[in-house]
Amino acid sequence: MGGSLNLDEIVADVAREIQPHRGEGLVADYIPPLARVDPRRFGMAIITCDGQVAETGDSWMPFSIQSISKVFTLALALEKLGDELWTRVGREPSGSRFNSIVQLEAERGVPRNPFINAGAIVVTDAVLAGRRPDEAIGEIRDFLRKLAANDTIDVDKEVATQEAATGFRNFSLAYFMRGFENLKAPVEDALVTYFNQCALRITCQQLARAGLFLANGGVDPITGERIVSTEHARRINAIMLTCGHYDASGEFAFEVGLPGKSGVGGGILTIVPGRAAVAVWSPGLNAVGNSQVGTLALEKLVQRTGWSIF
Amino acid sequence: MGGSLNLDEIVADVAREIQPHRGEGLVADYIPPLARVDPRRFGMAIITCDGQVAETGDSWMPFSIQSISKVFTLALALEKLGDELWTRVGREPSGSRFNSIVQLEAERGVPRNPFINAGAIVVTDAVLAGRRPDEAIGEIRDFLRKLAANDTIDVDKEVATQEAATGFRNFSLAYFMRGFENLKAPVEDALVTYFNQCALRITCQQLARAGLFLANGGVDPITGERIVSTEHARRINAIMLTCGHYDASGEFAFEVGLPGKSGVGGGILTIVPGRAAVAVWSPGLNAVGNSQVGTLALEKLVQRTGWSIF
Amino acid sequence: MGGSLNLDEIVADVAREIQPHRGEGLVADYIPPLARVDPRRFGMAIITCDGQVAETGDSWMPFSIQSISKVFTLALALEKLGDELWTRVGREPSGSRFNSIVQLEAERGVPRNPFINAGAIVVTDAVLAGRRPDEAIGEIRDFLRKLAANDTIDVDKEVATQEAATGFRNFSLAYFMRGFENLKAPVEDALVTYFNQCALRITCQQLARAGLFLANGGVDPITGERIVSTEHARRINAIMLTCGHYDASGEFAFEVGLPGKSGVGGGILTIVPGRAAVAVWSPGLNAVGNSQVGTLALEKLVQRTGWSIF
Amino acid sequence: MGGSLNLDEIVADVAREIQPHRGEGLVADYIPPLARVDPRRFGMAIITCDGQVAETGDSWMPFSIQSISKVFTLALALEKLGDELWTRVGREPSGSRFNSIVQLEAERGVPRNPFINAGAIVVTDAVLAGRRPDEAIGEIRDFLRKLAANDTIDVDKEVATQEAATGFRNFSLAYFMRGFENLKAPVEDALVTYFNQCALRITCQQLARAGLFLANGGVDPITGERIVSTEHARRINAIMLTCGHYDASGEFAFEVGLPGKSGVGGGILTIVPGRAAVAVWSPGLNAVGNSQVGTLALEKLVQRTGWSIF
Repeated sequence: MGGSLNLDEIVADVAREIQPHRGEGLVADYIPPLARVDPRRFGMAIITCDGQVAETGDSWMPFSIQSISKVFTLALALEKLGDELWTRVGREPSGSRFNSIVQLEAERGVPRNPFINAGAIVVTDAVLAGRRPDEAIGEIRDFLRKLAANDTIDVDKEVATQEAATGFRNFSLAYFMRGFENLKAPVEDALVTYFNQCALRITCQQLARAGLFLANGGVDPITGERIVSTEHARRINAIMLTCGHYDASGEFAFEVGLPGKSGVGGGILTIVPGRAAVAVWSPGLNAVGNSQVGTLALEKLVQRTGWSIF
Repeated sequence: MGGSLNLDEIVADVAREIQPHRGEGLVADYIPPLARVDPRRFGMAIITCDGQVAETGDSWMPFSIQSISKVFTLALALEKLGDELWTRVGREPSGSRFNSIVQLEAERGVPRNPFINAGAIVVTDAVLAGRRPDEAIGEIRDFLRKLAANDTIDVDKEVATQEAATGFRNFSLAYFMRGFENLKAPVEDALVTYFNQCALRITCQQLARAGLFLANGGVDPITGERIVSTEHARRINAIMLTCGHYDASGEFAFEVGLPGKSGVGGGILTIVPGRAAVAVWSPGLNAVGNSQVGTLALEKLVQRTGWSIF
Repeated sequence: MGGSLNLDEIVADVAREIQPHRGEGLVADYIPPLARVDPRRFGMAIITCDGQVAETGDSWMPFSIQSISKVFTLALALEKLGDELWTRVGREPSGSRFNSIVQLEAERGVPRNPFINAGAIVVTDAVLAGRRPDEAIGEIRDFLRKLAANDTIDVDKEVATQEAATGFRNFSLAYFMRGFENLKAPVEDALVTYFNQCALRITCQQLARAGLFLANGGVDPITGERIVSTEHARRINAIMLTCGHYDASGEFAFEVGLPGKSGVGGGILTIVPGRAAVAVWSPGLNAVGNSQVGTLALEKLVQRTGWSIF
Repeated sequence: MGGSLNLDEIVADVAREIQPHRGEGLVADYIPPLARVDPRRFGMAIITCDGQVAETGDSWMPFSIQSISKVFTLALALEKLGDELWTRVGREPSGSRFNSIVQLEAERGVPRNPFINAGAIVVTDAVLAGRRPDEAIGEIRDFLRKLAANDTIDVDKEVATQEAATGFRNFSLAYFMRGFENLKAPVEDALVTYFNQCALRITCQQLARAGLFLANGGVDPITGERIVSTEHARRINAIMLTCGHYDASGEFAFEVGLPGKSGVGGGILTIVPGRAAVAVWSPGLNAVGNSQVGTLALEKLVQRTGWSIF
């Protein structure tokens, strides 16, 4: 079905439609390197399972991956630990803000899902698996490089350092879970890995390419390599749909109707099961912390392609 | 795609596979008329958008619709109030148990979504719209009769009465919202309507038929009649996927991967967007209150049909 | 020590000092009969264990007893049930607002203490003990009449009726506890009793006299009659000190330093263990719902008498 | 009144009465130096405002002061900051466990009172006031030495180190508050100070002596030196009564009826306003974390002396 659409034309239409909205939303400003990004940036890239590519705008420009990295560490952790991972983190929507600690107390240190911060820190700890942070950071970066078929992807050390210097809530969450023995590594090690993974820089082109295996049952359709099991791919997609957009996951399910994961850097990765992966980027965020123009662009795309799963 | 599958054969296979599991789970026992249902009952019915029907087991046998009724009152309320409904009830997963009151206090009487009890009571109040309960109960029943093309669907008055006599938590939720003026009708009126809607008896055949418009963008594909707007159909499906199974909505999204709504009577309505509606019924419930064998049957069905949206 | 003070002079001084503050605070306005009370009213009455009386201002004027009634129903319930009462209600500060339902959910229908609304409803239910509401209301009224040595004390039926018509939150709390079987009577019976007890009208003179047994180890020092056991008197005083003023119990313990219980009608009953009982009334409430000028008057009184227990 | 009692005899009676209970309760075992304390230890010391001393058992034996230190840092912080302190920490009972983080989230990083862990960390941060931890630790130690008139009081470095190595929840609380900018010092500095203050070793004799100023309006009655203002002494006493024993503050108010503060090392400091200070120590803890035999001894003491404020 992806093949029968003229994606170049559709993408061009989407870009035209969102044009008047460029610059809307508020750029994350809790650390300077995020705050100084030009709010008018907008990029979109689509890659289909049969290798078709369509893109527009700043799709070539690297941005801070932030929470979208949680999708990839989840894939790594699932392959390492299998279902054992689910003893340490749940798979249900949280109904709370991304950094809430209330649920953690009631559920004795087990976060509700891998996409709220506490859950992502546990997943990172599972990837870390007792190693030095450098090794885990290298593994995560290399995983993304391989998936994106691009060796230039790297950590923005300024972002990583500044996240670490200001991420008090994440330290609080991590120590809280450590108190329940749901963090195996020292808090400092788990968090330096986490902050580095969130500080990876990636372009829309690279991100769509990197997520494509999730649209194809866990197998990279271009190389034919199996990245995760079919079951794990399905699991990750289900979690993206139900938990991928914090307090607005239900809203995104309605407006876009596809598994997706947003990041505070303004990026969104969206999976069209069986068809394609889509990455958008625009740094202005809406009230719940998702890219405002990015979300709008995905709505326009879905209207034109009929890709909503509903 | 639904047309290319041999649904009769698939349904027969599913029935064979779940055979050793019949009787598993615990039948709801909080009121006698639910408690005395035979736990070994199992039925399944599929109806496709092009009118193909496949069924098995006790698909002809009426059971208590319970929370699945929330899907239909939501459709009615959305058509009546439109987006104004969303000022009174949210659209996000709750992350709490179906009858929790904690979130209601924090969010000043506005329930998180239409499928937790508090939200469903607000939706019923919106359908009631100042009328006498009998009128609203009649409207809801007639809506189901029309959708299912079956005039025998009716309320089990014994169930309705006993729910009312024991539903203290629902009274608590309703009075709580009344205190925030998010219930317009007197509590007694809203709840008698609610308890009657939950006490409707329906078969798998009727339920699948009644839900078919949700698989077809809001238009009943058999009669061609528009039931709700395309947007509302999409909205309802999105809410079913993210919030349809209480604390196990994420799990259902993974295992089945389709919008669905379960009821404590053991029924589940599942929508295959663009293709079909499926109803299963088996009264034994799993730990989170969803039909155990029914869920299993849907998993088997999805494995065979590839209907998961992920 | 009470005897060596010139209480008439002290009370006159207090009245003079609070004079510029009369009218401060906001009169409760959730029902008309409370809303129309003159905010400039102020009365104070002291009665010592050796029978000395001092009073000022509107100490002769009846006002709505409201939550102060909880002290007297607690005394009744403790004498009826003894320590069994503590299986149904706790004795610790709640740390939450007086009408919060959150703690009730976490602690399965057992309220934290007898002075938050939920706890007081349980206590009233214990006094009711399966009888008709009229009997229990009569018993509570007669108990107060006996303690105050005044047969004119009675329920303001207008207040009772209007509380019942608007007390949605109390209905919610009561149904919630009924769901946990921590309310034995039908909700309507427990609440009509509760609303009537809160609607009793009493003067400062009567209230101080009625509370005097708590200053004297459970024995009315004027008549010599034992009202409650020494242990129960001590228990009630301890609960008044730690829980008597909602969110401002700690503040009252500091500012006044005596066991006390306030009501939304503007009254406060304060116990000076071993010495006296004090009642003040001024209808304007501060931000946490306690009489603003009444609290100020008690502070002045304690400064002059040195009666703070700290 | 303290003078008219034969305290030596009373203390001997109390010791005799608790004799069969020695060894009851569970010794804190989260770090080895606490776990290896002999559970049968018991000591008590009373000092009256007129200098009378009575003691029994292991009153000469140093134990870990733990949370009782919070009383003294509160005195220091109040003298330093005055009422400004109350913008950073509340003065009301928490209704939650001593280490709960739930309330902190709802109230944006402001702990409910100075005696729950979060509140005590804020108070320590206020004492620290931007200095190096060593200076603050020295100041706290010297304050206790002066109050106890004993220069041997010192920190048990083994306890301090092990608390720091295992105190994940305290790190979580501290980082949480740091995220709300309610901690001025780096978390490590605030906590090393906190862990050292809790690791001070003190005897019952020294502790009763050190707390005596709180029984005398803020002035040490032996030396005549003013330690804190009368108002601050009253404030501290009020907080000890309403918040001094975690989840059992209401129970302690009833059973003992005096301001008190317990520590997980098994000590309890109790103030008899206007009369005396009492310290007990017995390492076995009851279910809520207060010394079991120590609490019993205080009950016996109060029964004999009539010192309950109720």
